[in-house]
Amino acid sequence: MSKEIPYKIYLEENEMPKQWYNVRADMKNKPAPILNPATLKPVTVDELSGIFCTELAKQELDDTTAYIDIPEEIRNFYKMYRPAPLVRAYCLEKKLGTPAHIYYKFEGNNTSGSHKLNSAIAQAYYAKKQGLRGVTTETGAGQWGTALSMACAYFDLDCQVYMVKVSYEQKPFRREVMRTYGAKVTPSPSMTTDVGRRINEEFPGTTGSLGCAISEAVEAATSQDGYRYVLGSVLSQVLLHQSIIGLETKAALDKYGIKADMIIGCAGGGSNLGGLISPFAGEMLRGEADYKLIAVEPASCPSLTRGRYVYDYCDTGKVCPLSKMYTLGSGFIPSANHAGGLRYHGMSSTVSQLYHDGLIEARSVEQTEVFKAAEQFAKVEGILPAPESSHAIKVAIDEALKCKETGEAKNIVFGLTGTGYFDMVAYQKYNDGLMSDYIPTDEEIEKSLSGCPKVD
Amino acid sequence: MSKEIPYKIYLEENEMPKQWYNVRADMKNKPAPILNPATLKPVTVDELSGIFCTELAKQELDDTTAYIDIPEEIRNFYKMYRPAPLVRAYCLEKKLGTPAHIYYKFEGNNTSGSHKLNSAIAQAYYAKKQGLRGVTTETGAGQWGTALSMACAYFDLDCQVYMVKVSYEQKPFRREVMRTYGAKVTPSPSMTTDVGRRINEEFPGTTGSLGCAISEAVEAATSQDGYRYVLGSVLSQVLLHQSIIGLETKAALDKYGIKADMIIGCAGGGSNLGGLISPFAGEMLRGEADYKLIAVEPASCPSLTRGRYVYDYCDTGKVCPLSKMYTLGSGFIPSANHAGGLRYHGMSSTVSQLYHDGLIEARSVEQTEVFKAAEQFAKVEGILPAPESSHAIKVAIDEALKCKETGEAKNIVFGLTGTGYFDMVAYQKYNDGLMSDYIPTDEEIEKSLSGCPKVD
Repeated sequence: MSKEIPYKIYLEENEMPKQWYNVRADMKNKPAPILNPATLKPVTVDELSGIFCTELAKQELDDTTAYIDIPEEIRNFYKMYRPAPLVRAYCLEKKLGTPAHIYYKFEGNNTSGSHKLNSAIAQAYYAKKQGLRGVTTETGAGQWGTALSMACAYFDLDCQVYMVKVSYEQKPFRREVMRTYGAKVTPSPSMTTDVGRRINEEFPGTTGSLGCAISEAVEAATSQDGYRYVLGSVLSQVLLHQSIIGLETKAALDKYGIKADMIIGCAGGGSNLGGLISPFAGEMLRGEADYKLIAVEPASCPSLTRGRYVYDYCDTGKVCPLSKMYTLGSGFIPSANHAGGLRYHGMSSTVSQLYHDGLIEARSVEQTEVFKAAEQFAKVEGILPAPESSHAIKVAIDEALKCKETGEAKNIVFGLTGTGYFDMVAYQKYNDGLMSDYIPTDEEIEKSLSGCPKVD
Repeated sequence: MSKEIPYKIYLEENEMPKQWYNVRADMKNKPAPILNPATLKPVTVDELSGIFCTELAKQELDDTTAYIDIPEEIRNFYKMYRPAPLVRAYCLEKKLGTPAHIYYKFEGNNTSGSHKLNSAIAQAYYAKKQGLRGVTTETGAGQWGTALSMACAYFDLDCQVYMVKVSYEQKPFRREVMRTYGAKVTPSPSMTTDVGRRINEEFPGTTGSLGCAISEAVEAATSQDGYRYVLGSVLSQVLLHQSIIGLETKAALDKYGIKADMIIGCAGGGSNLGGLISPFAGEMLRGEADYKLIAVEPASCPSLTRGRYVYDYCDTGKVCPLSKMYTLGSGFIPSANHAGGLRYHGMSSTVSQLYHDGLIEARSVEQTEVFKAAEQFAKVEGILPAPESSHAIKVAIDEALKCKETGEAKNIVFGLTGTGYFDMVAYQKYNDGLMSDYIPTDEEIEKSLSGCPKVD
């Protein structure tokens, strides 16, 4: 196995995965079931089908089927922007002077600018197949909303996006991309839903939050005929769709006989990380191989490193099922000076369980050093990374520098989830030396956690 | 030759071109020589070397060498974002219901968002090799400035960008990308150059123009030790570097035994169009094949379709060599409602000569229909195109619809030069139904042309 490794490893169309991998099937300790908020009993497919498409509700609750066929229509869409390249970061290695080999899986080569499209197209497909008129969703920074807009345009589905008000106003360009793809974008909290009106009344002048936008989108879905709600992260179905990232990564590494030593991903709700590590965690669970899996989260929203592993609400309005996860409490909102995404209070139940069982380790990093890593990466590798992705870059560089000290030629793989073209306000802050860090106090986290429901 | 054609044709690293192609070598009617503005005599390499790096000055004047080796350092950088895929627009074909096969060469998969990087890295390389400290340039919308900033960061060269003031103020994000890559960005006209001060005095409150920014950048280069000026379009050296687009396109087509019937490119200064068509025009010039080559320009800046083929100034300050080209006069500025790029008053001398000799045909299109084509393309092909690129999309769609009428399965190839992520203000205007068209009157063009120098 001494083939020369190209800058970018592209799989051929016939090497592309034809099935998603459901890591839950190989987990002895399954993620705890999600609970109906009214009964506190595990939700059934029937109950979930009121919110999600039936097929997606099934995927959400299926923790035994290891491989699920990717429908041909989805594989055709994937061809438009996949395979995503696995890039050997030759220039970064040289710049750092490290003997480590650094690889990154780049998911930013599509107009939504991130990996979110992988699940958006799957969810839109099942909605279309079920004969629905449209879907509703929330979006924060806008990556997910953009991805869903693209997917819905492709399948000619109506797309209604509740966009956190502060982003709607401060990120007009993301909004316009969604509109160009035909989506209807509403700033949240709005006056178009009960929960929106209630929140606006209770907190006049609020600029919104992700949890609040989720509640509005769910209400909009359940109060219109022919609509369902879709979500871009946290859910088990999303991790299933995002396993395409890890499967392609593994196929590309295998193609050149490369054994990864560690796999690093940024973690907000867990969609990218969960998808990236899935097949590797599967090998670990089956006792076939060992890897160091690292979740990187912002110090300002540290659900894994400082949260608690309990049942919690997934949204502010408490209309969604409860999930057992590492959480900071559903009322937790990162400091206003937090620039990037990764601002969700909880974490995918699958990632949470794997972390709880010691298969994943977690690190938190502060944003100034994240942007410093982003700038360093951009200058030598060309790509201007999203702030979210740059969390993984930061830890990959740290690990590569450790290798420099020890002289080890480790294979470091990280997920570069997307590009930062719509995050230039944050870059400007960094360029102007105006970026600051904020770490929540223990008291703040305790207070927020006190709002968790009493289950268990 | 019945290999199934994938969505995206990627060349392997060993299939990548190792030489640029200089179409001038195969032209019987060479482009007219550029003239020293002081003597009105053809410039020499020595004279040009005061403005450009010596190697680039040689390339600028070399109209006999057909193939020029691409230095290894440049080929290594190309690997970071090349090969650019040649995409079969299966979804667009289906949407249009056309029997035509549509292919586009997508140059937007890099942070500068366009093909400009192909020449930026070459010019930065030669500057570095000559031992220079840095380079100066101008930028309008910012694609070229961004590309040059990336290239200079890679080679650790100082980069000074004069950005047309109206763009500097209205496109702060492009500016921040450049700053992130370490460039110094100055709004033009500035008070840092003689020509800038003169223009500011003569036209108080002016928001600048490309021609004016060029003059400032040239002055900045020639008044600092160890600096040279670089330019992203129009020049023959730029077309040489951009021939990589056409060479890769041709290699990808050949790989699958596809014979293009027509090749369509948007045309501002001619860098993309010239690069894309070079090898195809070469075959035509050598009598080996025939193609329909189409240049598409905005109706608001119609240098080929309504300009005059004469010697003209390349910049407002009249400090650059004169070039014989299709021009609207160096004082021509497109209407303020013109959204996209492609706003240069002239056209590459090579493209001009090929057009004059009937090898290229030209069409002008209005911007509302361009954005309509862009939206249609985005919805089915996923990629949100740059307004510039969308000019080519518009004509490709027109041609595909003609095939639908005639039932011909023509192979239509067009250049998708870049993405529109930094053009959302224009898209917003379109989405809101506020976009309008403007076509200059004959009188306006005549008036502007009257400022051309009396040469010939």
